[in-house]
Amino acid sequence: MKTFNPVRGTNDYAPRAAKIRAWAKQTILESYQENGYNLITTPILEHLDFLNSSDGGDNLRLMFKTIKRKDKLDLTKPNLTEEDITAEGLRYDLTVPLARFYANNKEKLPTPFKSIQIDYAFRAERPQRGRDRQFIQCDIDVFGDATINAELELLKTVIDTYQKLGFNKLVVKINSRKILTALILNAGFNEEDVNSVCITLDKLDKISLNGVIMELIEKNFATENINKLADTLADININGVDVLVKNGANATDVAEITYLINTLNKITNNRYEIKFDVSIVRGQGYYTGAVFEVYTDGFGGAIGGGGRYDNMVGKFSGQPVPAVGFGLGFEPVCMLIKERGIEVPLKQNLALIYDDEDICEVFKVKEELKKQYNVSLYKRAKNMKSFYEKIVEVADCVTSVADYKQGKEIKLLNM
Amino acid sequence: MKTFNPVRGTNDYAPRAAKIRAWAKQTILESYQENGYNLITTPILEHLDFLNSSDGGDNLRLMFKTIKRKDKLDLTKPNLTEEDITAEGLRYDLTVPLARFYANNKEKLPTPFKSIQIDYAFRAERPQRGRDRQFIQCDIDVFGDATINAELELLKTVIDTYQKLGFNKLVVKINSRKILTALILNAGFNEEDVNSVCITLDKLDKISLNGVIMELIEKNFATENINKLADTLADININGVDVLVKNGANATDVAEITYLINTLNKITNNRYEIKFDVSIVRGQGYYTGAVFEVYTDGFGGAIGGGGRYDNMVGKFSGQPVPAVGFGLGFEPVCMLIKERGIEVPLKQNLALIYDDEDICEVFKVKEELKKQYNVSLYKRAKNMKSFYEKIVEVADCVTSVADYKQGKEIKLLNM
Repeated sequence: MKTFNPVRGTNDYAPRAAKIRAWAKQTILESYQENGYNLITTPILEHLDFLNSSDGGDNLRLMFKTIKRKDKLDLTKPNLTEEDITAEGLRYDLTVPLARFYANNKEKLPTPFKSIQIDYAFRAERPQRGRDRQFIQCDIDVFGDATINAELELLKTVIDTYQKLGFNKLVVKINSRKILTALILNAGFNEEDVNSVCITLDKLDKISLNGVIMELIEKNFATENINKLADTLADININGVDVLVKNGANATDVAEITYLINTLNKITNNRYEIKFDVSIVRGQGYYTGAVFEVYTDGFGGAIGGGGRYDNMVGKFSGQPVPAVGFGLGFEPVCMLIKERGIEVPLKQNLALIYDDEDICEVFKVKEELKKQYNVSLYKRAKNMKSFYEKIVEVADCVTSVADYKQGKEIKLLNM
Repeated sequence: MKTFNPVRGTNDYAPRAAKIRAWAKQTILESYQENGYNLITTPILEHLDFLNSSDGGDNLRLMFKTIKRKDKLDLTKPNLTEEDITAEGLRYDLTVPLARFYANNKEKLPTPFKSIQIDYAFRAERPQRGRDRQFIQCDIDVFGDATINAELELLKTVIDTYQKLGFNKLVVKINSRKILTALILNAGFNEEDVNSVCITLDKLDKISLNGVIMELIEKNFATENINKLADTLADININGVDVLVKNGANATDVAEITYLINTLNKITNNRYEIKFDVSIVRGQGYYTGAVFEVYTDGFGGAIGGGGRYDNMVGKFSGQPVPAVGFGLGFEPVCMLIKERGIEVPLKQNLALIYDDEDICEVFKVKEELKKQYNVSLYKRAKNMKSFYEKIVEVADCVTSVADYKQGKEIKLLNM
């Protein structure tokens, strides 16, 4: 039988879900804008050479690519390769197009340049719950500011935004790749092992300190180094940032991250849990400084994250450009809004039933009710039972022109 | 030299343009919602068989298609065809996915179902001004309402929406494919010629009646029929809807379209020019009833259009489903907003310069100013001349923390 399902790994969103998602998108956009970031838009179709030359890692394998069109597609060519038939890529994130945009426009743009992108990206991942092949990313980035105040304004904006989305209990976990690297080197590991150790440390949350030790042993690192690193982590766990320098971190780096955490707590009136967390690594290899993740009560995964990536933009544009960014997790946020029944301040949808009234009178009533509701006209159906059963998919309440004119109360529909 | 331009035929939108486009999108969405239509979203990636089995015409030739991934791509297969290497298509409009969505969900959805889609579609057209390969469509559609009141509510919504976008002078031209067909047959043409005659009539605006006659002669239609059609058109041009029946139109069809036009004029207080126009054809072959286009003063092209297409949805879902829809022309609308300097009610962007103040004090001032502005922090630059030159790309006005605290006026920037 023919299926009408959307393409594998993608989703249709029916009215109730789509309305909340549109509200969330707009709320994020307005909060980012209010805080001084500037929306840009870039196309979904992106040059393959840019995508391929990025730090895309696994994402490159998962890329959607378009086929060459018309005469450009020659399938009779001997020893055909994928390159022969490929035209463009669908972007797998918004950072590569942002870097291209910046390289293309930097002469005109102010320094620092603070951007917003809220748009689709694509990855052909194995379909699973909460992981669409087409998904929305909500990024803010700052290009051209090497100071920690870039992180400060960015994280303040992020907190404001979650607040506006109805998330009042937030935990912001902050770490520094520079500090982390120093701690690892100080424990005796080599420069070239840092990435591998980081990948294991990233799991501290899930597998605890013992799990981390086991995995490092499996990776055949020297027991001495592993033990020293374990001691360092335990020490930090108990004593916090005060023991970072003692364990090999650079004092300036520690002062910077401490300033960030303390100031952020102060300007948010200590309403949130904002703290140093040595286990925050962030997967991507391109981070160079502060890294951070945001959590909310009762949900295990991060609902957003980001960090500083000072070496990435230069790869595109030639000149080095300091950069820091944050991606708000649109899918977990929408899921939580729904699951928690977070009150979304939207106009209710009213189904306005009309009979044989003069149609101009019907529209007059619609206009009046539009002041308070989203109003949709429905001619009274022959089968009102079936009408009521299905109207709940789109409407929150219902009345008729006749009832309204008699001053009867508007009926709320039970979903 | 490496180019940082976007992919051929697509566009980046820098902050000033992107901000207006986002406002337009949101304004359209809110107006559609307020009038009782329901947002749904469907994926950009669409099943190729759906796209190919649609009335896509030229759009099928212009389709972007994705390459099969991983093991599924076998380039060594002999006599390779495009089908062998193709996975999905990028949709070329929003109507095909809507029909698929409806077929998939119709058991749950109310009748009529009134949808909104505001999203991207893709066509690999030859790049030209105002025609992007990735573009935004802003559609409302009604499925399951065969009555003319569907058109009435739809067009009232459309007029409201243009009004909200700042277009106060609108011309709504309305025709009926049924009437048009009757007029053509009445002039002596055959059933199978109707489409070809319609294609020529569609150009009446551009090439005038003489041009139409010339083209019909070139198409080798009988002179007698051409002359009678020309007389009919001239008659309607002078005497309007009153002479439609005399020229072969069905009286019920004429009554219906007259009701639509008169009622629409009435419920919009005769503020717009809403009229029958026999030259409105709309290209697509799938229209079956009313067709309409919206124009604004001083701009030649339509800024939106649509019509009734009662036979299209049934092709997908098996059962016939009456349908009517409208697509608002997002690109011409955004172009006109910019060209006409239409006032867009958006918060102004303020660049807030700080010196060596306590950073918490700086954020306090930012919060205060956020009540009125979108506020972005900038540390005072060494070269303020260059700062001022470039900040206009993102900001409308500027002040410093020190100036603000001294009560000095906020400086407007000249763009």
